[in-house]
Amino acid sequence: MSTFRRYQSADYEYSFTNPKPHNYVLAPLNLTSVLKDDHYNINAEIFKLYVNNVIPSLNLVGDDQLYDLTATADITLLQAISRRIHYGKIVAESKFVGPTAAQYTALIKAKDEAGISALLTDAAQEAVVIARATAKASYYGATLDWVNNVLVPGTVKIPPKAVTDLYKNYLIPLTKVVEVHYLMHRLD
Amino acid sequence: MSTFRRYQSADYEYSFTNPKPHNYVLAPLNLTSVLKDDHYNINAEIFKLYVNNVIPSLNLVGDDQLYDLTATADITLLQAISRRIHYGKIVAESKFVGPTAAQYTALIKAKDEAGISALLTDAAQEAVVIARATAKASYYGATLDWVNNVLVPGTVKIPPKAVTDLYKNYLIPLTKVVEVHYLMHRLD
Repeated sequence: MSTFRRYQSADYEYSFTNPKPHNYVLAPLNLTSVLKDDHYNINAEIFKLYVNNVIPSLNLVGDDQLYDLTATADITLLQAISRRIHYGKIVAESKFVGPTAAQYTALIKAKDEAGISALLTDAAQEAVVIARATAKASYYGATLDWVNNVLVPGTVKIPPKAVTDLYKNYLIPLTKVVEVHYLMHRLD
Repeated sequence: MSTFRRYQSADYEYSFTNPKPHNYVLAPLNLTSVLKDDHYNINAEIFKLYVNNVIPSLNLVGDDQLYDLTATADITLLQAISRRIHYGKIVAESKFVGPTAAQYTALIKAKDEAGISALLTDAAQEAVVIARATAKASYYGATLDWVNNVLVPGTVKIPPKAVTDLYKNYLIPLTKVVEVHYLMHRLD
């Protein structure tokens, strides 16, 4: 990462690895998956969404030229978003083996994507998820007046509306895309 | 990082870089430093402190074997701690050119490390820094009851005492080590 200007910042930060470590490789883990084998992923779409929608929604201004720090944060956020969306596979599997298993099996056999999507959708639960994420953005994103132990009004770091929109327009719909795709191929 | 088990986790996470990118290099920034040239750093000491004191203070249990995720968090924390401590150079320079410049210059010429350390120390300010960091750990580390917009008692993620100790026993003293070293060599 030092090729992206890390350790050149005005922060006077130093590398912990000099010389760089050898390329050690740990033995793979033998994890047993609860899922049907499924390598489908929509990271290409998530990347475009992140660049074209998420970043602009944060109302960032200026350019500190310290692109490694930015890229590191980008990677962390992209991976968090991706992980959240692909959890849809676990949700889908739990539905497939759950109380409505027979309904899902029938819809899968009929290749009824719209029917699967409708059966998956729980609008009340989606509203709860969106409200909770928005509340957390308002709360954890604000500056603490630590003497009086209250949040300082107007100090939120990103617009909570950006979080509302992220969940409503992207995270929930894309999770559903992953769920539907997984189920459509569950009996392959 | 994929050699450290990333993308083998039960989270079903996927790489954004396949194939891996070429090793692009950005042109260096031409930053003008306010500091006297000083490559001194105590990262070796910070690393030992992190492994031997900080991590044990967090009361972590278990082993998820997903060492890349852990190492990524470790690197972020080590760099944050290191940055915080080496800010001492900026503090030291501001003291050197500030209202007590003559006193510092005399102490530096006399090679009086203890005298410099004493002149640097502001016990009241240190107490404020420690109290603020501890309050933030208690506040931002707790789970939000987002329906009632209050923190849930007993849900703090790391012991606030660990943050108190980190600042009191390590961050503040080590920042002072960096400040004193910088000033001792300010007139070299």
